[in-house]
Amino acid sequence: MGKIRNILFIMADQLRADYLSCAGHPTLQTPHIDGLAKRGVRFDRAYCQAPVCGPSRMSFYTGRYMTSHGATYNAVPLRATELTLGDYLRPLGYRVALVGKTHMKGDDAGMRRLGLDPNSSLGVLVSQCGFEPVERDDGLHPDQGVDPDLAYNRYLRAKGYESENPWHDFANAAEGPNGEILSGWYLRNARLPARVREEDSETPYMTDRAIDFIRDSGETPWCLHLSYIKPHWPYIAPAPYHAMYGPNQILPAKRHPRERENTHPVVAAFMQHEESVNFSRDEARETVIPAYMGLVKQLDDHLGRLFAFLEAEGRMDDTLIVLTSDHGDYLGDHWLGEKELFHEESVRIPLIVYSPDAAADATRGHVEQRFAEAIDLVPTFLAAAGGTAQPHRLEGASLLPLLEGRVPDGWRDATFSECDYAFREARQILLVPPDQARGWMVRTGRWKYIAYEGFRPQLFDMETDPDEYVDLGESPAHEDARAAMAARLLAWLKQRRIRTTISNEDVEKRTGNAKSRGILFGVW
Amino acid sequence: MGKIRNILFIMADQLRADYLSCAGHPTLQTPHIDGLAKRGVRFDRAYCQAPVCGPSRMSFYTGRYMTSHGATYNAVPLRATELTLGDYLRPLGYRVALVGKTHMKGDDAGMRRLGLDPNSSLGVLVSQCGFEPVERDDGLHPDQGVDPDLAYNRYLRAKGYESENPWHDFANAAEGPNGEILSGWYLRNARLPARVREEDSETPYMTDRAIDFIRDSGETPWCLHLSYIKPHWPYIAPAPYHAMYGPNQILPAKRHPRERENTHPVVAAFMQHEESVNFSRDEARETVIPAYMGLVKQLDDHLGRLFAFLEAEGRMDDTLIVLTSDHGDYLGDHWLGEKELFHEESVRIPLIVYSPDAAADATRGHVEQRFAEAIDLVPTFLAAAGGTAQPHRLEGASLLPLLEGRVPDGWRDATFSECDYAFREARQILLVPPDQARGWMVRTGRWKYIAYEGFRPQLFDMETDPDEYVDLGESPAHEDARAAMAARLLAWLKQRRIRTTISNEDVEKRTGNAKSRGILFGVW
Repeated sequence: MGKIRNILFIMADQLRADYLSCAGHPTLQTPHIDGLAKRGVRFDRAYCQAPVCGPSRMSFYTGRYMTSHGATYNAVPLRATELTLGDYLRPLGYRVALVGKTHMKGDDAGMRRLGLDPNSSLGVLVSQCGFEPVERDDGLHPDQGVDPDLAYNRYLRAKGYESENPWHDFANAAEGPNGEILSGWYLRNARLPARVREEDSETPYMTDRAIDFIRDSGETPWCLHLSYIKPHWPYIAPAPYHAMYGPNQILPAKRHPRERENTHPVVAAFMQHEESVNFSRDEARETVIPAYMGLVKQLDDHLGRLFAFLEAEGRMDDTLIVLTSDHGDYLGDHWLGEKELFHEESVRIPLIVYSPDAAADATRGHVEQRFAEAIDLVPTFLAAAGGTAQPHRLEGASLLPLLEGRVPDGWRDATFSECDYAFREARQILLVPPDQARGWMVRTGRWKYIAYEGFRPQLFDMETDPDEYVDLGESPAHEDARAAMAARLLAWLKQRRIRTTISNEDVEKRTGNAKSRGILFGVW
Repeated sequence: MGKIRNILFIMADQLRADYLSCAGHPTLQTPHIDGLAKRGVRFDRAYCQAPVCGPSRMSFYTGRYMTSHGATYNAVPLRATELTLGDYLRPLGYRVALVGKTHMKGDDAGMRRLGLDPNSSLGVLVSQCGFEPVERDDGLHPDQGVDPDLAYNRYLRAKGYESENPWHDFANAAEGPNGEILSGWYLRNARLPARVREEDSETPYMTDRAIDFIRDSGETPWCLHLSYIKPHWPYIAPAPYHAMYGPNQILPAKRHPRERENTHPVVAAFMQHEESVNFSRDEARETVIPAYMGLVKQLDDHLGRLFAFLEAEGRMDDTLIVLTSDHGDYLGDHWLGEKELFHEESVRIPLIVYSPDAAADATRGHVEQRFAEAIDLVPTFLAAAGGTAQPHRLEGASLLPLLEGRVPDGWRDATFSECDYAFREARQILLVPPDQARGWMVRTGRWKYIAYEGFRPQLFDMETDPDEYVDLGESPAHEDARAAMAARLLAWLKQRRIRTTISNEDVEKRTGNAKSRGILFGVW
């Protein structure tokens, strides 16, 4: 064991917190992830700040809540003045690199206004969330929008997969009895094997890119964001993973007829979405979830390969490793598909943190029940790299003290997440204008309170109703609980970090100093 | 009368709403400002978004609340990605220029991070709130920090005022019996005449610069921000204005012994500031307020000269004119000096809007009691210039409909203002950390509610107690009123515009269109 020098920030996409054997999944065995949890700390109550890829990731990369960073949905540009992980670690001598997905959309208009060409090397850095894009691949390449120069497509073609879009036609499609391509975009094809050899599929490919990066980095400290595309859809796994699990091994659907009665209007609108209608059918669940499990299993196997490589290279002794996901996946629970709303299946995320530092020996294998949030990672990495805390911008807290068995005073007793459903059909169903399609979740140990602009709130008693079947949002008996949770939301909104252009140290230095600078106001 | 082509945006600094004869001041006659009010609309309940220069002005120039623009105090840099008046009007063919003060601090670090030299022509524009700095002069030039190349100092020297810092030694100082310089920084010198000839003092000088600009602009549409430095301190007026008013002509102090009992902790800390202690003495009020009134009178006279020039040039027929101030001045009311807190004397501002358009004929001379806010000006100017509303960023509303006698549906029934006292001694007195020194005001027709982070709220009944002497912040009988006002604050915080990088039109275009772009999620 040694001191932290490098940071390996692994993210899976749309990986539910409960689809790991260390988190209790009864049929899906993830021994390598479990092994990391045994060597580190698994945060059992970790939450993303927005249960959809783009804004969740912008919170991971900026260390700020969605309200603060403003990139509220996929492809909403992140303001060019928001600092990201690279801005924090690069000045400390780190090479900060990306292999895989960020879902970042650069603020091209903002950059052009400031005279910065988004295609210049600096512009690219700003557009890539501060990561040096060793290989950026957001994992969604429909024929209509495929990058002609996509590295993974070039790789596949070099391996003999001849197509305009081998990402789709081989890695994310199956083959019919007459050789026809059966697209992985369609749920009904999820039980079939992808047309790609396992070793050429996305998960091993990205793992290899990470191994190459680590091997090539030598002695320069690095922070690598290895950001896997799976088990996010297209839900299709290569052999043998496509057939490793069957319908009898999936978790029973967590849903109750009661959820369809007097349903909250926003939830009801999401239930009308095609993905919700389809995932509410047992046939869809029984077709898709085994493939989803196969993709998780494949991920676990390649993480095992990656961890073995790190071990062999001595990197387990000097590398902080985080494994997490940007959000979960309803998979038909609560009569919903996809994510975006605030049930645990959507908003709770897996989070395992391993530190090689001997100071963390006391907690190895610990399962932490205190709330952790996506925004804690930037402060964690900054602390691990020896940087100065920047609480005027960063809204999370370093997890290192918890790893070392110390609980900082006033550790949060509530967690917050947000959504902006302006881009979804639900908004049109509800006739809500684009500015009003917002929701906020406040979850304490006891309660989950959800405020949707323009509608009644939701309230769940997480102690007596952990499955969130009983919405107490209109219960007369719970008026006080709702008022207390609304007060929590108000207190939280008031505490957002808005003064980001000057540090607290500089504020202290300047406090009351006007007169020393000759600005004599109010002096007789 | 004609159509609006130009925009003249006049701001006085620290001019109280009630120090105009048209607003009821009994002894201070401001006939030229009154004349503008007779030709336009005077908004009697207009409020600034932060009662201190910097953040108030950033709200004026960005059209956004302080929480949204983040420049929470003087010299806190405005994020380089915040758009300002120039960004909105320049693309519409306007020359957008500044004569006078903005109190803008450029985001040098943010610009450098994006490869923009703050001293380049683009960098200067971003640093000057989007204004072409025809003449920037923030009006405070202590010897320790005086710009060696200050245009006004060059002017004074050319006029024979020989000094390293003629701004101070002549325009803002008096002379003692033995020829010694008596600095205008000291309140005790306010009764003396400045050492400058009236025609060379700051108000006529800035008026002349504006006249030059307007004359030189020819047929190009322009938006000129004529931003006077006075009646802000140093409180010292040139002859004859220094002696135009006496102690018997000032308004009685609006203060009550009750305000010093059980005082709210934040207010109590501000009462300990030197400016509050001094302004609580009658001698200070009787010395300073006549000078303040003289400075207002001088301003009115030069505005008369400016309006006569506009009339002669035909500009009254094609120019929208706004007259306002960034905040008020306690002048000893409520046992306070300066501004920053939320009493009407501090937070209410004068606001007169004159439109040459015949559509505004119906309201000439009208006194409007509906709430107006500083953030309404950018939308007003944008509408006057024929631009498209940008409600995804701009948080105010155009005042033009009110000028035309139309009241838009849902016009605000509350107004909001904010403060960040992190930089003030009050924070140190209260032992508050830099991030927690925040306050929010919500004022409806009936109530004024003030929330200070970490302390009890304040509540005033503006109908029965318009002087704000009775703080109901702990009154058991007003629990419901406080809860209702806290709910207003929560609703307001939830409605802030955070998704600023994409327009609502673009959101509408993209809503539900993923599948048309080949992103087939949830399709069976």
